[in-house]
Amino acid sequence: MSFAATVLTLYPEMFPGPLGVSLAGRALEEGTWSLDAVQIRDFATDKHRTVDDTPAGGGAGMVLKADVLAAAIDHALERQPQAPVLAMTPRGRPITQERIRELAAGPGVTILCGRFEGFDERIFEGRPVEEVSLADIVLSGGEPAALAILDACIRLLPGVMGAPSSGVEESFEAGLLEYPQYTRPVEWEGRTIPEVLRSGDHAKISAWRKQRAEDDTRLRRPDLWERHTGVRDQPASGARRDNED
Amino acid sequence: MSFAATVLTLYPEMFPGPLGVSLAGRALEEGTWSLDAVQIRDFATDKHRTVDDTPAGGGAGMVLKADVLAAAIDHALERQPQAPVLAMTPRGRPITQERIRELAAGPGVTILCGRFEGFDERIFEGRPVEEVSLADIVLSGGEPAALAILDACIRLLPGVMGAPSSGVEESFEAGLLEYPQYTRPVEWEGRTIPEVLRSGDHAKISAWRKQRAEDDTRLRRPDLWERHTGVRDQPASGARRDNED
Repeated sequence: MSFAATVLTLYPEMFPGPLGVSLAGRALEEGTWSLDAVQIRDFATDKHRTVDDTPAGGGAGMVLKADVLAAAIDHALERQPQAPVLAMTPRGRPITQERIRELAAGPGVTILCGRFEGFDERIFEGRPVEEVSLADIVLSGGEPAALAILDACIRLLPGVMGAPSSGVEESFEAGLLEYPQYTRPVEWEGRTIPEVLRSGDHAKISAWRKQRAEDDTRLRRPDLWERHTGVRDQPASGARRDNED
Repeated sequence: MSFAATVLTLYPEMFPGPLGVSLAGRALEEGTWSLDAVQIRDFATDKHRTVDDTPAGGGAGMVLKADVLAAAIDHALERQPQAPVLAMTPRGRPITQERIRELAAGPGVTILCGRFEGFDERIFEGRPVEEVSLADIVLSGGEPAALAILDACIRLLPGVMGAPSSGVEESFEAGLLEYPQYTRPVEWEGRTIPEVLRSGDHAKISAWRKQRAEDDTRLRRPDLWERHTGVRDQPASGARRDNED
């Protein structure tokens, strides 16, 4: 069964974009997944095809109208009632690899992309829409975020990745960063590959990698480490980044 | 002066992709920013143009070679010594809006995109490369992440956004989520725009928005709220999401 992606957007010409190339592009051609980029403007009802209006209470920018959004979402839900509807918004819940895995295991996903100042908030009360944030940065619209979410899903679909095992031992799969990788040449600009990785001792290599994954997560991402261990690291570690932003 | 973006990638055909459309596309045409998508493979030195090799110590996937990456980075640094070099990797530091603003205010950026199992770690010791993570999800490569980072930068360039003030009062600019937005119709499916927003009382509206931005940040993103206030919220609030992933 094919993974059906629907994107509701004011810029359907942005799709498939990078997803038409490489692994995702081949999988699209082979029918492993399908893509329907739907123009939100087609659901406007006035003769000017208006999709937005000024913010209630004043302020800069424009807000996407709830009635037009609802019509577009209803269209997607009618065609694919089982696919969850995600709206890309910085107000949403940060996307996780766990959620990506759930989505990839399902029938597909509908992604609503905003522009301007965002969505009329009532759409989230009136329709079953999951507010999702890609990162704590502000994009010009939801489209680049939708491309990233879809890319993450597609690579998990059966048959897309060359080696099936590549998907298993990787970042975030155990709630940790991945250990560092090295390859030939053994010496490059005076820097050598760590000796243990050249030892041929699989138990030692495995232990080293586990240790590095844990150490690097603790030092680089105390937030992930805290979640992984359930224990708050001592601020005295000096490696916390919480207060840098 | 134009913002010069260089992308080091095995798939230059993915660019400009969505950045060739809409605001970013117009700004590209007008020369507000420039894009150079550089094929990493052009810096391979053997006749097979090899860019990757098997991981030292064994394991699935392939690792991008330090010597080839270094040659590609050196090429970018030669042409644009002042532009920071970012490598998109889940092992990197999570991107922030603050860093985006810094990048957008500078001469440009070079973004190194990985594929397969990632980069030979020595490249981060041997070259001035900033490891950056877009989100805690695994992409098929750095390209979708690079597109998102560039999109976030481009919208901040002078002249790109329609209303200059749109960039000021928005998500993360004060370390908070943005308040919810509403627009006409006043009543939609029985749901009305909050009365205060229709009051015309600017002080009240401003106070309501500030309160909602704070409340929503506290409830939806305790991590941001903690950083904003410098105080750890009580776990008893019941709204923490730390343990859901």
